[in-house]
Amino acid sequence: MSNDLHAIRDAVRTFVDERDWDQFHTPKNLACALSVEVAELLEHFQWLQAGQREELGEAKLEQVRHEMADVMVYLVRIADKLDVDLGAAVIEKMALNRAKYPADMVRGDARKYHEYKDRGINP
Amino acid sequence: MSNDLHAIRDAVRTFVDERDWDQFHTPKNLACALSVEVAELLEHFQWLQAGQREELGEAKLEQVRHEMADVMVYLVRIADKLDVDLGAAVIEKMALNRAKYPADMVRGDARKYHEYKDRGINP
Amino acid sequence: MSNDLHAIRDAVRTFVDERDWDQFHTPKNLACALSVEVAELLEHFQWLQAGQREELGEAKLEQVRHEMADVMVYLVRIADKLDVDLGAAVIEKMALNRAKYPADMVRGDARKYHEYKDRGINP
Amino acid sequence: MSNDLHAIRDAVRTFVDERDWDQFHTPKNLACALSVEVAELLEHFQWLQAGQREELGEAKLEQVRHEMADVMVYLVRIADKLDVDLGAAVIEKMALNRAKYPADMVRGDARKYHEYKDRGINP
Repeated sequence: MSNDLHAIRDAVRTFVDERDWDQFHTPKNLACALSVEVAELLEHFQWLQAGQREELGEAKLEQVRHEMADVMVYLVRIADKLDVDLGAAVIEKMALNRAKYPADMVRGDARKYHEYKDRGINP
Repeated sequence: MSNDLHAIRDAVRTFVDERDWDQFHTPKNLACALSVEVAELLEHFQWLQAGQREELGEAKLEQVRHEMADVMVYLVRIADKLDVDLGAAVIEKMALNRAKYPADMVRGDARKYHEYKDRGINP
Repeated sequence: MSNDLHAIRDAVRTFVDERDWDQFHTPKNLACALSVEVAELLEHFQWLQAGQREELGEAKLEQVRHEMADVMVYLVRIADKLDVDLGAAVIEKMALNRAKYPADMVRGDARKYHEYKDRGINP
Repeated sequence: MSNDLHAIRDAVRTFVDERDWDQFHTPKNLACALSVEVAELLEHFQWLQAGQREELGEAKLEQVRHEMADVMVYLVRIADKLDVDLGAAVIEKMALNRAKYPADMVRGDARKYHEYKDRGINP
């Protein structure tokens, strides 16, 4: 239940309406707020050497969980304000990504599609 | 089905494994990638005057949908690598937010909790 | 004197060396830290309606000044670690920008270069 | 000459005025644009393993130089629109940082000030 994007959207909607905050929620303002939350998430990782979970410690991981929740809430809220079905958008985008990065061609390589093309790897 | 966070997590996992990209997916690297995707989303809004949906136009809105999907995919992926249940984290964080911003106190006001406190509005 | 980028670079270098923090200053970590500071700057503007100076108030403006200083410090530090001459890079990039956005063609229009091209405005 | 922040400010001002772009340059919009440019810088580092200069390669380093110039230009522009003297702000903030992170106390340690305090290391 809690994993359903529509249920999260509805819970966020109720939270916002109860506070009369919809007036502040232009998609642009929400995109700014999303950027800020993502940076608060990144902040926990900025000086880690390997960048792995183990380096965080339990207290930090708890904060990271909350930052991730904030990111999710703003993302779901932007989607709501733009009438975007997030789940459908993900399915569509992943199909595009599968076509753009064929598994046989990119296996184990992190360069981006256009870089492949630049280097003549793509037909 | 497509709105289920666990289903999205599994689809992303398959995509990554087919490409042997897990080796690049430290939580730190994924947090960087998430920041980059969020900025690509923000880019569409940066010069809009009111920041509303109508100013985007259909072609831009389509790009925005795809950027939002990218943000979701990286967020779900970080959660997977950190063993975080995103849906549970959202429920938990929203309960904290309800306590932090009581509807009666903050209605129609966008200042942050600590600003209320600073101004003696909180007990 | 205080407006000289080399002087700022040297002051930052001394600050870092006195604390033995150079070991943390990979360009990647610094780019993360820069992102975080820029988000702290953006945070002050996220809910502003017009986004103008007047909406900030003096106390906020003081915080904004400090965030801008942090952004500058990290930018200068990345440049130092990458042996980039920031002043020279700016001159070079602005020459490219003048060629990319000819004043006669783009006056009063915020669309990006590629969008002009897409719409056949460029030759 | 090219390292002087006031000279850069003036050059950016001229560039903007020639294009009649000042109308788009609210501090908020510029803070958004700054975020976007910083993310374009971060993008070059996101998958690097050690995050060091050597991993970039010359072509990437050239792009990184240009992204850094863009960041500088927007930062200088925000300062101009907010009547902030960037050089003076940096000197002031660095004095605060020296007081906040005394060299003797923090040498070789990347934890933040408040974390020291939390752990009772500060008086």
